[in-house]
Amino acid sequence: MEYNRVTAPVIAELKSIVGSQNVLDDPEQMLSYSHDEATGAKWRHLPEVVVKPQNTQQISAILKLANQERIPVTPRGAGSGLAAGAVPFLGGILLTLEKMNRIIELDRDNMFMVVEPGVTTAEVQQCAREAGLFYAGDPCSADSSFIGGNVATNAGGNKAIRYGVTGQHVFGLEVVLADGQVAVLGGKTIKEVSGYNLIQLMIGSEGTLGVITKIYLKLQPRPQFNGVIMAPFASIPAAIQLVPEMITKSGIIPTSIEFMDNLCIKAAEQFLNKQLMFNHAAAYIIIELDGNSEGQLLAEMEMLAEQCYRNNALDVLVGDNAATQERIWKPRRVLAEALRVISPVYSMEDIVVPIKEIPAVVLAINSLSEKYGIRIANFGHAGDGNIHATLLKDQLGHQEWDERKDQLLDELYAEVYRRGGKISGEHGIGAKRKEALTQYIDPVALQTMKTIKRALDPNGILNPGKIFNL
Amino acid sequence: MEYNRVTAPVIAELKSIVGSQNVLDDPEQMLSYSHDEATGAKWRHLPEVVVKPQNTQQISAILKLANQERIPVTPRGAGSGLAAGAVPFLGGILLTLEKMNRIIELDRDNMFMVVEPGVTTAEVQQCAREAGLFYAGDPCSADSSFIGGNVATNAGGNKAIRYGVTGQHVFGLEVVLADGQVAVLGGKTIKEVSGYNLIQLMIGSEGTLGVITKIYLKLQPRPQFNGVIMAPFASIPAAIQLVPEMITKSGIIPTSIEFMDNLCIKAAEQFLNKQLMFNHAAAYIIIELDGNSEGQLLAEMEMLAEQCYRNNALDVLVGDNAATQERIWKPRRVLAEALRVISPVYSMEDIVVPIKEIPAVVLAINSLSEKYGIRIANFGHAGDGNIHATLLKDQLGHQEWDERKDQLLDELYAEVYRRGGKISGEHGIGAKRKEALTQYIDPVALQTMKTIKRALDPNGILNPGKIFNL
Repeated sequence: MEYNRVTAPVIAELKSIVGSQNVLDDPEQMLSYSHDEATGAKWRHLPEVVVKPQNTQQISAILKLANQERIPVTPRGAGSGLAAGAVPFLGGILLTLEKMNRIIELDRDNMFMVVEPGVTTAEVQQCAREAGLFYAGDPCSADSSFIGGNVATNAGGNKAIRYGVTGQHVFGLEVVLADGQVAVLGGKTIKEVSGYNLIQLMIGSEGTLGVITKIYLKLQPRPQFNGVIMAPFASIPAAIQLVPEMITKSGIIPTSIEFMDNLCIKAAEQFLNKQLMFNHAAAYIIIELDGNSEGQLLAEMEMLAEQCYRNNALDVLVGDNAATQERIWKPRRVLAEALRVISPVYSMEDIVVPIKEIPAVVLAINSLSEKYGIRIANFGHAGDGNIHATLLKDQLGHQEWDERKDQLLDELYAEVYRRGGKISGEHGIGAKRKEALTQYIDPVALQTMKTIKRALDPNGILNPGKIFNL
Repeated sequence: MEYNRVTAPVIAELKSIVGSQNVLDDPEQMLSYSHDEATGAKWRHLPEVVVKPQNTQQISAILKLANQERIPVTPRGAGSGLAAGAVPFLGGILLTLEKMNRIIELDRDNMFMVVEPGVTTAEVQQCAREAGLFYAGDPCSADSSFIGGNVATNAGGNKAIRYGVTGQHVFGLEVVLADGQVAVLGGKTIKEVSGYNLIQLMIGSEGTLGVITKIYLKLQPRPQFNGVIMAPFASIPAAIQLVPEMITKSGIIPTSIEFMDNLCIKAAEQFLNKQLMFNHAAAYIIIELDGNSEGQLLAEMEMLAEQCYRNNALDVLVGDNAATQERIWKPRRVLAEALRVISPVYSMEDIVVPIKEIPAVVLAINSLSEKYGIRIANFGHAGDGNIHATLLKDQLGHQEWDERKDQLLDELYAEVYRRGGKISGEHGIGAKRKEALTQYIDPVALQTMKTIKRALDPNGILNPGKIFNL
C-alpha cells in the first residue's frame, strides 16, 4: 500500500470538519497518543495529526477525506490496549473517540443500552446497575477502557466464563466504513439471520474494517447474590489442576475462576504495601459465584470449597460481603500496575488454550522461564484457559531482553498452538503479535481475512499494519 | 454471473471423486432434493446432479471442479429449512451432507463435541446427555434437522432466550471455501481475538460463503432440574403483554417462553386428535425453567405463576415431571405439521422484534389478517421477540393467495422494520425472503455483504441466489 502525508490543506480540511479546537498537530500535545499500554520504545509512534470528532457525520467526512487522499487512519479508544493496536506507526490521522462519550439510551423494557464508543466500561456497568440491571462485560481495565475499545478487541475479562466475552453482549452497531459510508447493523433484537453477521465480523477487528460509532449492548437481570472464595495452594500443579476439574465435575459455572502465581502475589504485596495472607503460597485461585438464591449460592460455595480442600488447598477464605470480597479481589485487580513497578518493561502475553491444557501450559511456561532466564509472572482467567504470562525484563539489557523474549515467545506460542490454543484470547493481535500470527494460525484463514480486508478497505487506510500486513 | 451446465465429463469427474454410487442424475431419484419445507411450486427446482461426499477432501475436490467449470453448487443438510435456502434454483450440483454424519469426538474434559454437519440435532443432544452434559441448541426441528443446517442458518429454537442461538455454542469450524481450499477456524477455546471472527461470519451465511465440514460445539453442565408452566389466556393482549413484563420484572431468565394462539390450539387439537385443556383460550403461554436447585426452581415457578395470574391467566398448569411436561409441550411441538394438515400450502414467517414490541406486532398481524382475508396462526419464541406468523392459503386460488400474501407480508415486514425488527429471526432469508430483504435492511449493510460474497466467491458458485442477488 502507498500512503500520502498529512498536508496543510488536509489539516485545514480536518479543522473545517471537526473544528480547530479538535485538531492537534503539535508533537508535544500528540505525545500521549503515540502509545498504548504495550511497553517498550518499539511500540511508540507519533501521528501526524490528532482529530477528535464528536459525531458520526464528522467521522464519515474524515474517512471520506482520508480514503480519497490515501492517508492512514488509526482509531483509538482510551489507549488502554496491550497490543499496540491503537499506535499510529505510519503517522497519518489519529482518530480519537474520546469525545463520543454519550450514553444515548438505557432501554429498561427491552433491556438494552445504546452507547457511543468513548464511554468507559465502568460507566456502562454503573449505568446498568443504577437501572437495576447488569452489564456482564468486565475487563480488568474497566475503569479506564472505553466500551468501543472493548468491542474493537472483543475484550474478555473476569466474567467471561459465565457470561461470555464482549461480543456476546453486542447485538447492534453503527459503523463508519473505510469510504465514509455508515452501516447500521442489528439493533435491539437478540437474534436475527437476515444476512451475514457483520456485527461479529466488526467485533474484534481492531479498527481495521470500520470505526464503531454506536453500540447496542444487551443487559441482563441483576443477579441478587454473589460470593467469592480464595484458595491458596502449595504447588502450581495442585492449583491449576483444580480449574478444569471444577468446571467439569461440579456442574457449577462460576462467574470467575482467576489464577495468580507467587510472583504475582509478591508484586501485589509490594504494590499494596501490606502483607497478604499465605504470601508463600505457590498460587491463589479466586472463584466468584452469583445467583438469585442465597441458599443455593451458599451450597455451591461449600461444594467448591470442598473441592479446593480435596485438591490440597492450604486454606479456603470466603468473601460473603463487599469488604471481604474486595480484600480477596484487590491483589488480583492491581496486577497490571503492580508488575510494572517491579519491572517497568514487560511483555504481557494473552495465550488461550482448551481448559484441559492449562496445567501443561503453565508448566511449560515455568520451564521456558528457567531456560531463558526471564522471570514470568502468571495470572489470568484460568476458567477460560486464558493466561496472562507476563515476561519481566528486570535488569536485562535491551538487546538481550528482545532476543531472549522473542525466542521464548516463539517456543511458547508453538506449544500453545500445538495444544489447540491461540496467541491472543482477549487483548488482540495489534502490531505486537502480527509477526507471530503468521506462524500460529491456519494459513487459509489468514488469507481469507486479508481478502475481506482488501475488499472492504481497498486503499488500506484503516489502522494499517495491525493484525496482519497486507 | 454466468454459469455452465453439468456436462457428461463433469458427471464422470464427480463420480471419480465420490464414487458412482454417490452420484445421482436420474430426475426421479433427485426429486426429494428439489425442495425444502417451504411450501408451494415456486420453491421447487431440480438439480442437474446430486453428489454425496463422505469427507472434506471430496468436498474440496468438488468445489475446485465446480469453481473451475463455473457450475452452481447448492449445499444441503436435512432439507428441513423453511426459506428455500437449499433449493437448487439454477440446477447445477446439489451437494448433500447426509453422508458426513459422524460424531467425531465427545471431549468431556474440555466440554466440547466435534461433529460432522450431517448429524441430526437430536443426536447431538442425545450424545451430550449420555455424557452427563448438555447441548443447549434446540430448534423445534431437532429430530430431523442436521447440525450443519442449524449452523448455516444460525438456528434459534426453544432455549435461545436463556442459552443463545446456535452460533453462541460454536467455537470452531472447518469450512471448504469456494475455490476448494479448506479453512480451519477456532477450535476448543471459548475465546480468542486472533484475527477476524470468520466463524461467526460463516454461521448464518446459508452456504453462500463456504461448505461447513466440521463443527466444534461447546457443551455445558447439565441443569439438574427443570419445570414447565402453561397458562391459557382469554385475550391475546393479556397473554402477550406478559412476555416483556416477565423478563424485565421477575429477574428470572426462563429457558423458554413460548406462545401459541387459538388457531394453533385448534390445529394441534385436530392433529393430535384429542381435546386440549382450555381450547377456547385466545392463547397459551408456555414457560420452561431449569436450574441446579430444586428449591429455587420451585420458588421461581411460583413467582412466574403468580405473575401469570396477575396478568389474568385463566389458569396455570404445572409440569413437574416428564409426563406432565410432555403434555404441555406436545401441542406446541406439533404445530408445523398440524398447520400443514389444515392448509397444505402456507407461508411460515419468522419475524423478530425487540421484546417490548411483541404486543403491538401481534395486534398488527391480526389486523392484517382481517384486512386481507387470510387466516394467520401465530406462535413462536415470544421470549426472543420471534413470532412465526403463519399465513394459511386455505381455499384461496393460487393467484389470489400469491397476490394477497405478498401485499400482506409487505405491510407486515414494513411494520416489523419500523419497530426495529428483522424479517428473519432464525429461519434465514434463503430464496424466499431475498426480495423483501432488499427493502428491509440497511442498504450499506447489504452492499457490504455483497462485497464480501464477491471477494470470497468471485465466480458466485456457492448457493447462488440465496440471501441476495449479486
